[in-house]
Amino acid sequence: MALIEKINHPNDIKKISPDQYGLLAEEIRQFLVEKVSVTGGHLSSNLGAVELTMALHIALNFPEDKVVWDVGHQSYTHKILTGRRAEFDHLRQLGGMSGFPKRKESPCDSFDTGHSSTSISAALGMVRARELRGGSHTIAAVIGDGAMTGGLAYEALNNMSRLSSNLIIILNDNNMSISRNVGGMPKYLSEIRTSSGYLQLRDRIYDSLNDTLPGVARGISKAKQSLKSLMVPGMYFEDMGITYLGPINGHNVQDMVKAIRDAKRVNKAVLIHVCTKKGTGYPPAEKNPSRFHGTPPFDVKTGLPLKPAKRITYTDVFSSTMLKLAETRPTLVGITAAMEDGVGLQRFHTRYPNRFFDVGIAEQHAVTFAAGLALGGMKPVVAVYSTFLQRAYDQIVCDVCLQNLPVIFAIDRAGLVGSDGETHQGIFDLSYLSNIPGMTVMAPKNRHELTEMLRFALSLNSPVAIRYPRGPAYDGLRSCRAPLEKGKAEIICEEGGVLLLAVGSMVKTAEDVKEKLAPLGVTCSIANARFVVPMDTELLRGAADRYSLVVTMEENIRSGGFGEHVASWYAEAGISAPLLNISIPDSFVEHGTPEELCRLTGIDADSVAQRILKRLDNAGKD
Amino acid sequence: MALIEKINHPNDIKKISPDQYGLLAEEIRQFLVEKVSVTGGHLSSNLGAVELTMALHIALNFPEDKVVWDVGHQSYTHKILTGRRAEFDHLRQLGGMSGFPKRKESPCDSFDTGHSSTSISAALGMVRARELRGGSHTIAAVIGDGAMTGGLAYEALNNMSRLSSNLIIILNDNNMSISRNVGGMPKYLSEIRTSSGYLQLRDRIYDSLNDTLPGVARGISKAKQSLKSLMVPGMYFEDMGITYLGPINGHNVQDMVKAIRDAKRVNKAVLIHVCTKKGTGYPPAEKNPSRFHGTPPFDVKTGLPLKPAKRITYTDVFSSTMLKLAETRPTLVGITAAMEDGVGLQRFHTRYPNRFFDVGIAEQHAVTFAAGLALGGMKPVVAVYSTFLQRAYDQIVCDVCLQNLPVIFAIDRAGLVGSDGETHQGIFDLSYLSNIPGMTVMAPKNRHELTEMLRFALSLNSPVAIRYPRGPAYDGLRSCRAPLEKGKAEIICEEGGVLLLAVGSMVKTAEDVKEKLAPLGVTCSIANARFVVPMDTELLRGAADRYSLVVTMEENIRSGGFGEHVASWYAEAGISAPLLNISIPDSFVEHGTPEELCRLTGIDADSVAQRILKRLDNAGKD
Repeated sequence: MALIEKINHPNDIKKISPDQYGLLAEEIRQFLVEKVSVTGGHLSSNLGAVELTMALHIALNFPEDKVVWDVGHQSYTHKILTGRRAEFDHLRQLGGMSGFPKRKESPCDSFDTGHSSTSISAALGMVRARELRGGSHTIAAVIGDGAMTGGLAYEALNNMSRLSSNLIIILNDNNMSISRNVGGMPKYLSEIRTSSGYLQLRDRIYDSLNDTLPGVARGISKAKQSLKSLMVPGMYFEDMGITYLGPINGHNVQDMVKAIRDAKRVNKAVLIHVCTKKGTGYPPAEKNPSRFHGTPPFDVKTGLPLKPAKRITYTDVFSSTMLKLAETRPTLVGITAAMEDGVGLQRFHTRYPNRFFDVGIAEQHAVTFAAGLALGGMKPVVAVYSTFLQRAYDQIVCDVCLQNLPVIFAIDRAGLVGSDGETHQGIFDLSYLSNIPGMTVMAPKNRHELTEMLRFALSLNSPVAIRYPRGPAYDGLRSCRAPLEKGKAEIICEEGGVLLLAVGSMVKTAEDVKEKLAPLGVTCSIANARFVVPMDTELLRGAADRYSLVVTMEENIRSGGFGEHVASWYAEAGISAPLLNISIPDSFVEHGTPEELCRLTGIDADSVAQRILKRLDNAGKD
Repeated sequence: MALIEKINHPNDIKKISPDQYGLLAEEIRQFLVEKVSVTGGHLSSNLGAVELTMALHIALNFPEDKVVWDVGHQSYTHKILTGRRAEFDHLRQLGGMSGFPKRKESPCDSFDTGHSSTSISAALGMVRARELRGGSHTIAAVIGDGAMTGGLAYEALNNMSRLSSNLIIILNDNNMSISRNVGGMPKYLSEIRTSSGYLQLRDRIYDSLNDTLPGVARGISKAKQSLKSLMVPGMYFEDMGITYLGPINGHNVQDMVKAIRDAKRVNKAVLIHVCTKKGTGYPPAEKNPSRFHGTPPFDVKTGLPLKPAKRITYTDVFSSTMLKLAETRPTLVGITAAMEDGVGLQRFHTRYPNRFFDVGIAEQHAVTFAAGLALGGMKPVVAVYSTFLQRAYDQIVCDVCLQNLPVIFAIDRAGLVGSDGETHQGIFDLSYLSNIPGMTVMAPKNRHELTEMLRFALSLNSPVAIRYPRGPAYDGLRSCRAPLEKGKAEIICEEGGVLLLAVGSMVKTAEDVKEKLAPLGVTCSIANARFVVPMDTELLRGAADRYSLVVTMEENIRSGGFGEHVASWYAEAGISAPLLNISIPDSFVEHGTPEELCRLTGIDADSVAQRILKRLDNAGKD
């Protein structure tokens, strides 16, 4: 019987003898590679955190003790060790187990994560609650060095200086964000890691000083606690009032168990600096941790994706367009928040290294930095996932739109993103962007229009957001190429009947709806909204009489979205138009394939057709 | 002729001889106290930054050189020195000069600020633009130690390690946020300030080591640059790749001029640590800098407000209610982001010190920390200004609402706040909060209802936002006390005719509208919406037939607000209701009195009455 099979409940790992830890880690890695190769999922970060997670489960008790997994894409081993091994066959699938910690899945998941840098804040909240309500459970945050580049993590660290009860922060340092790491903090951590003789050197100086200059040593003790603390690695943390332990080999279970046990005895915040390697144990992931950060199903032997015949994605189109536009526009610059690969800026980076900026996991800074660049005469393009741009709402309001600066937001993964689930759906952007005065909000119907919209955005001298979905770029409607005009929709086909007024990805859906309804005697016209802000009010005004029903269609929640703007405009204009708003209902959407999720939320062609029929039917009865 | 009168254009200060700097500083202070005592405005921070600003204007050239003023409430002296002295009679008044830097006011204002911690990001953007486009102008950010507790500032610092051209950061360290400072970073700065013998001590050790242990000294040089850098104050900044100069007396012009000139020669980021005292030169402000942070008009001699007969504000009501609720609810905790006084948590702090948390200027952390507290069994109330909560949009989405945690947001300064202007208007919250699934959004009609809503919010086990305006709390409609029921509006008076469906502060306006329309033969009914989410759809359904017009009224922008939700609901339900949405048009709103701004934006009683008449008139013509 394999060791992993003995682990079916929380704390079962405690029955494993220390000399078998290595074997268990190996089995877990084999299991992870095998399962993720079938379902797809996060791999590199999970392979790197196997021993770290084992150590936590050996040193702590679940579910009494609480561990907050920052971002959460390293929590697979935690799921295995808490009795969820069998669920891996349905990882990230509709109705199956999430790829992130979920409190509703297990009492051993103490905080839902997905976005970066939240763990220390959440853990500190739990610690304060423990102080007030009593309790002796351990509370720990596990955070990567990449997540430490996010300002929220720093805000939390800054709030720890006065803590007089235990809180354990495990800094899982693999010298990577999703891509390469950037900035002063990672550089600082790297200095600690690489200065091997540093600790001994410190002790040698300290001893020498004590012998030769006892007065000076005492003087320092007064001026600052001691020379020892002055020269300890991790002094940055010590300065913040946080005890530093490390660096520790993050692939040695017993060293980490000892460190965690030591840390539990300290009545303040303790940071354990653990060094790991992303992708450990699976050579293709070790070689290319970035490719295996989030991976589709792959062949275990070769590491190659199972479906290599990849279609061109919107990200690819953005990537090529940026290269092309940059040729003749020396002021064009590209900015990413630790997502160079994901957003498609690798080639731009290679070709124009001085005009490319990876700011780390720091969306707030990305946006305000872009505002500064714009004021300096540049044309910054902030390429970012829809869900992560939520972090910079205030900066978009105050630093970009209030000052009417020409910053372009290229918003990838807008709409339903699929298997990453609730925390990653890009279904709020039309709402939170269109409520900001001065922002132009666009969505392309197909790949050609994305290129045109980027070109058009550069011609405006004001803030612009272009949102486009994850996955293959629609290549239909190639002949529809009416020039872009601000605030003007594009008529795709005009046959009277029902008007399908669709935003971005929903234009394709509108074509399908039209086809489904035609045999049932319902004629549809289709308009591509192009602009969510400003809206084509001339089209709306004319549409009220011309069509039996105006159907707005968007891959966004209802509240604050395009449909509401249209409904409100009609009300304001005193025009009584027959209107149906198709959107994602106001709720969070779980993981599944985009197709499944479209059906689930009622924005697939079948559901839309049904709702139109029902509405026409009801109207007929009046 | 006074020295200050010689300063009428940028760079005029350069004509002043150094021995007169002290006198000029004195005149500027006198001018500031005199002017702000009449108009009201920010005083403490401006009095503290007089010499610092003079030094910048002596060492730099405006408008060629660029200075970004973090938050911007210390920029009055900059306005004086750039030829805007005459505008101070209209400071913060409608059509007059803003209390914050505004690019449209002067080419010497390089970046509009208002919210905290943006300056370094913006300046870094300008530096990168200078590198790419060429230029030899100096770029500087002036940031307070309070603003350094915001994560955005850290994100920016983290991005400076690779900088190979000049950027000057002036850390204006007065050991204060708006209230007292908190956290590890301020503690660290304070250690530098107070360790007077520190620099000498460092040199002594270094010299000793060189003499007695040359091998060790060399060893250190290899392991890390040098013992000197290891032990310099400001090593935290040096670790981030930023050259540190300081600490310097921030009330000595010539020392600062020298430091700025030195700093300009360094081809990387340089931080000048300047120590100042808030309120310098005006004893009442020195004694109580917090009271004079933002002050109403006051008597210069006594420092007392000119209109001391203050009416009870919503903040006062919140303050008292928190005290009362806390008595019987041991799990109730209060959180503020550096706004203890502003949000009314002083008494709660004094009475329940363990249940009060000031997290610094760190709204993101405040929210995620609250989520952690809620998971630990507490009932956290995050008391925050509407405009500053924008910083935590993503944390509200992912950390609170997605997990359906019972965090209560007590949102002060919602709606038009008046003289602080564009960056501070609380006119987006109904939009950005009501688009988050699971959030209950309420607004009280009067002071009694605010108390009831807080009590009610504690009885729900889910996220709740209660938004209320700045200034005196409405005390009318005291007899309207129908118990709160989730998603139910309250009928204030039912007489058929036009239904005024008003949110929060607009209930009072609705009463005035009703009064204005009655003599004109238009009857109004009034409903207090109470809940923006979930809406009272039963009332909406019934209203379509019962009233000649349904008028939604809210002190929020149109886009994504209550009116749009109502319009969309009617459209969705297929109900053709005569509807008029009263809201603030989708644009930023400048400074002025709240009354002036209501008129300007068309949400005062007169404007609303006019719009209703016009609409009824148009409808009559159909």
